[in-house]
Amino acid sequence: MYFTQFSFTVATEGRGSYAIDHEINRGTQQSEMEKGLAHIFIHHTSASLMICENADPAVRQDLETFMADLVPDGDSRFIHQDEGPDDMPAHIRSILTQPSLSVPVTMGKLALGTWQSVYLWEHRTVPHQRRITVSLTGDFYVP
Amino acid sequence: MYFTQFSFTVATEGRGSYAIDHEINRGTQQSEMEKGLAHIFIHHTSASLMICENADPAVRQDLETFMADLVPDGDSRFIHQDEGPDDMPAHIRSILTQPSLSVPVTMGKLALGTWQSVYLWEHRTVPHQRRITVSLTGDFYVP
Amino acid sequence: MYFTQFSFTVATEGRGSYAIDHEINRGTQQSEMEKGLAHIFIHHTSASLMICENADPAVRQDLETFMADLVPDGDSRFIHQDEGPDDMPAHIRSILTQPSLSVPVTMGKLALGTWQSVYLWEHRTVPHQRRITVSLTGDFYVP
Repeated sequence: MYFTQFSFTVATEGRGSYAIDHEINRGTQQSEMEKGLAHIFIHHTSASLMICENADPAVRQDLETFMADLVPDGDSRFIHQDEGPDDMPAHIRSILTQPSLSVPVTMGKLALGTWQSVYLWEHRTVPHQRRITVSLTGDFYVP
Repeated sequence: MYFTQFSFTVATEGRGSYAIDHEINRGTQQSEMEKGLAHIFIHHTSASLMICENADPAVRQDLETFMADLVPDGDSRFIHQDEGPDDMPAHIRSILTQPSLSVPVTMGKLALGTWQSVYLWEHRTVPHQRRITVSLTGDFYVP
Repeated sequence: MYFTQFSFTVATEGRGSYAIDHEINRGTQQSEMEKGLAHIFIHHTSASLMICENADPAVRQDLETFMADLVPDGDSRFIHQDEGPDDMPAHIRSILTQPSLSVPVTMGKLALGTWQSVYLWEHRTVPHQRRITVSLTGDFYVP
């Protein structure tokens, strides 16, 4: 068994979800991991991670609609407005989703279901640089 | 230290939650794991995992009531309706809960609190076959 | 690679969030862990874990406001009221957040972002003793 870690940055274009599977699979392949777990961690509190349906883009559009209604930007209930009307909603949306995910790796790739992809969900309206760390634990082809 | 994986399928009878602890504990025992972590992953985006109170079935009934109100079936806000009125709500309910969970293992069993059980939460109204992969990382009795 | 576990208890003063980073970092340092993953697990279903913004206490105050509106105490929809009006809301708030979190460890400490801290979120109004287990997997300075 072996453990290794790598980080990468995603330049988001503002609110929305961005597939990051390919980036993670590239890392597992470069690490020559055979099987184990890939742990994915985002070092921010106003963007998060999710596993979502990957076939119909309307799913992620509907998710945005749902979240925008559930946690309205500029809601007068919120005290924390330092960085604008999307500041506190971004924190809440992050809490309701996840800062970290683990996915099984088999034969060197994320063992996702057919309709699953891993997404970074940017909750701020303005573009951001988001840092992600992937930790791999398991068996490697070349130990 | 050692790593092993196994998968199993749960045949759900439609929307509702299904305890899966016993299935996972059977796997840890067959693997002769002593202590470590059990990572549980569901390969679907319209069913999820949760750790919930296991003593009073009304808790999970109230959870269904809450979710049905929060994410109404057939909501006209949703574009993605390919598989019926429960399609998009199932995706949202999955995002608001979790596709993966990790639980400590001690003395060969999930080290859950007294009132905790692991449940598969089926969000579709119709029965489905749901595949789950358990990844065990830690120390084993027989290495 | 090595695996170790430790537990600790947090005495909460009722509903609210309590930073637990320092407790976890003390454990990684005592274990002489260099790099790997820290898995944090709460053995309860009416308190949860979250990673949240750590600079402005108003963020966690706004979170309480949001949750209190989303899952009202004493809501007549709920059947499960055994332990009072905050009983079922505490379970729902726990389900909407998380019973377990994993965080990368580098150079012996949680590799959190600048604005991230790990919080125990007590959802019951009355003080409770909450047990947390931390599982460390990775490379240690002294194997």
